[in-house]
Amino acid sequence: MTTPSLGVAVIGHAFMGKAHSHAWRNVGAFFPEAPRVRQQVLVGRDPARVTAAARDYGWTDVATEWTTVLDRDDVDIVDVCVPGHLHAEIALAALAAGKHVLVEKPLANTVKEAEQLAAAAAEAHRHGVVSMVGFNYRRVPALALARRLVAEGRLGVVREVRAAYLQDWLADDDAPMSWRLRQDTAGSGALGDLGSHVVDLVRHLLDDEVASVSGDLHTFTRERSGPDGVERVTVDDAAWAWLGMASGARASVEVSRVATGRKNGLCLELYGTEGALTFDLERLNELHVTGRDGGFERILVTEPTHPYVGAWWPPGHTLGWDHTFTHQASELLCAIAAGEAVRPSFDDGLAVQRTLAAVEDSARDAGRRIHLDSAIGAAP
Amino acid sequence: MTTPSLGVAVIGHAFMGKAHSHAWRNVGAFFPEAPRVRQQVLVGRDPARVTAAARDYGWTDVATEWTTVLDRDDVDIVDVCVPGHLHAEIALAALAAGKHVLVEKPLANTVKEAEQLAAAAAEAHRHGVVSMVGFNYRRVPALALARRLVAEGRLGVVREVRAAYLQDWLADDDAPMSWRLRQDTAGSGALGDLGSHVVDLVRHLLDDEVASVSGDLHTFTRERSGPDGVERVTVDDAAWAWLGMASGARASVEVSRVATGRKNGLCLELYGTEGALTFDLERLNELHVTGRDGGFERILVTEPTHPYVGAWWPPGHTLGWDHTFTHQASELLCAIAAGEAVRPSFDDGLAVQRTLAAVEDSARDAGRRIHLDSAIGAAP
Amino acid sequence: MTTPSLGVAVIGHAFMGKAHSHAWRNVGAFFPEAPRVRQQVLVGRDPARVTAAARDYGWTDVATEWTTVLDRDDVDIVDVCVPGHLHAEIALAALAAGKHVLVEKPLANTVKEAEQLAAAAAEAHRHGVVSMVGFNYRRVPALALARRLVAEGRLGVVREVRAAYLQDWLADDDAPMSWRLRQDTAGSGALGDLGSHVVDLVRHLLDDEVASVSGDLHTFTRERSGPDGVERVTVDDAAWAWLGMASGARASVEVSRVATGRKNGLCLELYGTEGALTFDLERLNELHVTGRDGGFERILVTEPTHPYVGAWWPPGHTLGWDHTFTHQASELLCAIAAGEAVRPSFDDGLAVQRTLAAVEDSARDAGRRIHLDSAIGAAP
Amino acid sequence: MTTPSLGVAVIGHAFMGKAHSHAWRNVGAFFPEAPRVRQQVLVGRDPARVTAAARDYGWTDVATEWTTVLDRDDVDIVDVCVPGHLHAEIALAALAAGKHVLVEKPLANTVKEAEQLAAAAAEAHRHGVVSMVGFNYRRVPALALARRLVAEGRLGVVREVRAAYLQDWLADDDAPMSWRLRQDTAGSGALGDLGSHVVDLVRHLLDDEVASVSGDLHTFTRERSGPDGVERVTVDDAAWAWLGMASGARASVEVSRVATGRKNGLCLELYGTEGALTFDLERLNELHVTGRDGGFERILVTEPTHPYVGAWWPPGHTLGWDHTFTHQASELLCAIAAGEAVRPSFDDGLAVQRTLAAVEDSARDAGRRIHLDSAIGAAP
Repeated sequence: MTTPSLGVAVIGHAFMGKAHSHAWRNVGAFFPEAPRVRQQVLVGRDPARVTAAARDYGWTDVATEWTTVLDRDDVDIVDVCVPGHLHAEIALAALAAGKHVLVEKPLANTVKEAEQLAAAAAEAHRHGVVSMVGFNYRRVPALALARRLVAEGRLGVVREVRAAYLQDWLADDDAPMSWRLRQDTAGSGALGDLGSHVVDLVRHLLDDEVASVSGDLHTFTRERSGPDGVERVTVDDAAWAWLGMASGARASVEVSRVATGRKNGLCLELYGTEGALTFDLERLNELHVTGRDGGFERILVTEPTHPYVGAWWPPGHTLGWDHTFTHQASELLCAIAAGEAVRPSFDDGLAVQRTLAAVEDSARDAGRRIHLDSAIGAAP
Repeated sequence: MTTPSLGVAVIGHAFMGKAHSHAWRNVGAFFPEAPRVRQQVLVGRDPARVTAAARDYGWTDVATEWTTVLDRDDVDIVDVCVPGHLHAEIALAALAAGKHVLVEKPLANTVKEAEQLAAAAAEAHRHGVVSMVGFNYRRVPALALARRLVAEGRLGVVREVRAAYLQDWLADDDAPMSWRLRQDTAGSGALGDLGSHVVDLVRHLLDDEVASVSGDLHTFTRERSGPDGVERVTVDDAAWAWLGMASGARASVEVSRVATGRKNGLCLELYGTEGALTFDLERLNELHVTGRDGGFERILVTEPTHPYVGAWWPPGHTLGWDHTFTHQASELLCAIAAGEAVRPSFDDGLAVQRTLAAVEDSARDAGRRIHLDSAIGAAP
Repeated sequence: MTTPSLGVAVIGHAFMGKAHSHAWRNVGAFFPEAPRVRQQVLVGRDPARVTAAARDYGWTDVATEWTTVLDRDDVDIVDVCVPGHLHAEIALAALAAGKHVLVEKPLANTVKEAEQLAAAAAEAHRHGVVSMVGFNYRRVPALALARRLVAEGRLGVVREVRAAYLQDWLADDDAPMSWRLRQDTAGSGALGDLGSHVVDLVRHLLDDEVASVSGDLHTFTRERSGPDGVERVTVDDAAWAWLGMASGARASVEVSRVATGRKNGLCLELYGTEGALTFDLERLNELHVTGRDGGFERILVTEPTHPYVGAWWPPGHTLGWDHTFTHQASELLCAIAAGEAVRPSFDDGLAVQRTLAAVEDSARDAGRRIHLDSAIGAAP
Repeated sequence: MTTPSLGVAVIGHAFMGKAHSHAWRNVGAFFPEAPRVRQQVLVGRDPARVTAAARDYGWTDVATEWTTVLDRDDVDIVDVCVPGHLHAEIALAALAAGKHVLVEKPLANTVKEAEQLAAAAAEAHRHGVVSMVGFNYRRVPALALARRLVAEGRLGVVREVRAAYLQDWLADDDAPMSWRLRQDTAGSGALGDLGSHVVDLVRHLLDDEVASVSGDLHTFTRERSGPDGVERVTVDDAAWAWLGMASGARASVEVSRVATGRKNGLCLELYGTEGALTFDLERLNELHVTGRDGGFERILVTEPTHPYVGAWWPPGHTLGWDHTFTHQASELLCAIAAGEAVRPSFDDGLAVQRTLAAVEDSARDAGRRIHLDSAIGAAP
């Protein structure tokens, strides 16, 4: 390992900051071929809380201003784990400071911000700076295997995709109002939060681009109570889309936060001319695959030949959700060491954002199909 | 049993004629409280084939012209099992002749025909004539239980329905051309064949009406070879719809004949404010139900307290697809004995037909939502 | 169809009589290549009840004495559906009268009776008389497919079988006393009722013989209330056995009537050197199969190439439990037409009985392994 | 957090050393209420390999002799991750040196060693020294929930347990000979490796003791090739046991390394008077539970109210196998902080060892039931 180690700063220490910290702490134990990592700085606004988090999660230093990490020579990677409306400012500054950047998904709340980020990432890449957007589900071994099987032609030509991402934390009308339910802070509701994952995965699994979009949005509970009293909910509870892919494939997408009983039900079905596969995130270690003549085979994706799995445990010893971030960290580190671009890139993040914007536009026009300019796209 | 027995004539002895014959032959053994049935006449064009079928399936007489059964006093029920474009003529004549009528789904190939049939059925009902359309999946015990649970409020207010009916017999580009793939004989493709079941079930399970529709259709394989050489396929391989229900519920529908690996995958998911349920026709004896706090419970719908099941076997002794027709026959017979209307009525068949037509209209207009006049409807 | 039709008499019209009647009524519709059947006589002690049953189930005549059917020339087949302690007398008399005989499982309550029956069947076969014991689960398409896969070597050498048959109708201590819980009428409890099916299937699927047995029995609820007050339960609630097969395979068996939540859970797992398969009767239409390198494939056993299935419906249209009896009837009829022996034979019934007796002997000797004389056996 | 931090030494850095290192590295991030851990020393024989492992896994120092850690004041906990025949020597010395001790399962290869260890642990406990045996599956959230449900009476009185632990890494006759297949190094085969987990879990879930045992062992492949040529396999490939529990419950156990298709199939079924539950380690985040009247409910054990889960991620974000060790580490640390004993204790390890020895004794006596002296036991 002659590669020098890389210092990391994580901005944010809530849910995503905890998950990313987990990845940085563990990546070296399982992916020793990647550059070593130094957990340099954890950034958070509240000094007491960030100090406690840093101690628990293994960080050397803390900071309360994210700007301070840009000047530190011991920080090579800036990992942005704050809410979406703050992504652009931080990531643009980090790229300008020559830091490699990982941004949690979705890349930004608006197409305009996403365009700025993609342009900045392209510019920075000319100087050897690597950037990535955190669509971590590409790193689920079963989904990485799914992509491999599609690429190998095991499904033939994929015709239909049936996809959903269903949760239920808003099924209760009494669930409280929060910033996530306001359009100005959250950008959108289920569409941006869950739909962005689904759109990214459809593009990724098929190695394809979205060419046209029909969309619909709905808010079942239009008012909720919060600390400031009853307030209007300004984002969607659920969203639907039909995607026409550049290849000719058709994808149906349904995302919801009111699907009672579904905790984290990211369900994918791909139907091709020669085979099909299905996946459910609630059974993260399994992929179900069929050819044309047989039934669905339940593959327990824990064999050493499966993507990422060789780094871990013997067959049958399942992985959890959190290690998708460890895989993601490993991919970013190896790209930095190789001086190469890595996907999902900011261009991928932008393509997703444009698709989601088209869903909203279509929804405003009674579901009429909108054709996307797919200039930005599938190039590896 | 003082009710007089009823004579039945089945028109058609192919797939559906065989299934309906099975029902008429067995209904008395399991539903002795229904009027007795006499399997009087089986009608088919080919004398040799209809004679063989009649012997195998238990029919007393045969006929090669369906018109002849209308004059027979020993025929009380005419059961129409021929392709859809022949439904209207036969059913209208039978109603005019005072026969009770069962028509296989879909009720007709066009809205116009369906309207004629509904009007004729209403008129005939004034004279004690009973009519029914054969949406047999209402008679699956698990789905009858699902409707009961919804009606009892176990799901609270149903918000989202995610439905699909997926088959794969056209996944192979080399599957041959046939009358089912021509618009003039079949009316439509997956939409009419599979979508009609789904639309009927959504209306039935929610006791609700379709208020608006967005639709899309696609034919993946545009030409197929048949006995007459290569020919253009003029119906859809797959169809998609979003249904806005009168209650405010939203339903997404996907039907396909090219979903590799799905043999008879009628998959329903209902999400309500208080609970949810899922069903898959490939596991016909199961219903999965959850409340708001727990996980999905797999109910094996074979208990004596479950709909229809008391007529059959002890708990755990599963039923097959064909007995849905036996249940259907029993319902029709009991309605005749009681002199009451029964559902799914021709009005139900018409409502389905209008919905499917709206899907096609919407598809022609790039998916734009169409609002239905739901004057015909949900009255029990 | 030049084969003359065959007249059937069923003795008994309770649960099994109803199921067998179903088979005789339907076999001609699905297996037209088998000889035609005449549903001649239904026999039962209570004149009113047997008359009602005969009308419902499609029988021409009734009788209250089983002996009367032996003299009728229009009866070719005697089908014995009464409790086990009555099997021997009726079946011996029927064989002596030259009737073909079908006996519900288990063949008899004792080894001695089973030996008499096997000897009589062998003698009768010399005169062209066919006999069969009603282990209907051999006729489940998925299990017939399982046997085919084993025979074809798809599993390599089968090493381990893990089998259970679990029900729960006695889980409640308050379930009432009945003749089934008395040793003198029922012979045994879960062991004879459920264990006989399992032992038959292990022998059948592996085409193998039981060579040694260890056994254990237990009665969890030792007293139950009945019409005559509290009474001692004299049969087992649950039983366990390890079978050493002649081939060297090992099978573990667990049967229970107190397995809460299991309604009809006949669960089989076969592990071989090259593959494995699993089955659960509660999902009767499915077989799960794996090779050495992959995962379990869920085969929906509804394809025309699967055993028995071609007679029925298109792919994906599932069958129910009751049609196993229809298949059984077809097999018996074809054997009679061909003048050939058919399995499961009375020898098979005897082999099962000897195995069950050895389980009881072993249980009395603290589980010590008992070696069987397997002179009677696997010859087809 | 005023509790002083605790220094850990792990002996061994192969499979289990890697898994335990993972736990020590991560426990502080998720269980901040436990004492802090210092990853002090990793011990291994090969200097280069242990150095590389220590760097990857986060250890400060390395040592090639385990004895050296006993003298270090900065080591408070000795964690023994070497093969079973080395457990006793190391653990006895560590206890004598006043170190807290964690020993991987099974506690020892022989009852005699296990007795010495249990005695030493009891003695050491008088001086505040804490010891634990690493039956990590007690720490699977679903199984911890299972124990809670049993303890709360949700299953009523548990009558039957049906348990198996099935793997397939020896299904291939060409799998190579190794120390794990020699009796003198491995102690036993599937019985000790897999059966020890099952016996521990049955005792743990039921809070019960094994009172009697019947056993059987089998080696399907009697010779295997290794580096030294063909050699006789002297341990079992598969083992079976019936356990009579002190409570009256009956448990059947089957363990195998030749169960083709099963990668890590630890399958448990508990049947009680009021309910039942099932679990499969290949679906580690799920527990299936039923009451007396309903079907099995699939509980996704990822709710904050479920054991251990509150420390991790939101509902529906599943955990992997490796975090069972993190939970185990947390339990040990909290016990040390509290100065209290913790289970599974060395007494638990001894009770398991005695049960396994009884299985072997019974197997040598043709399966005859053996009654255990259960003086060592279930006291918490």
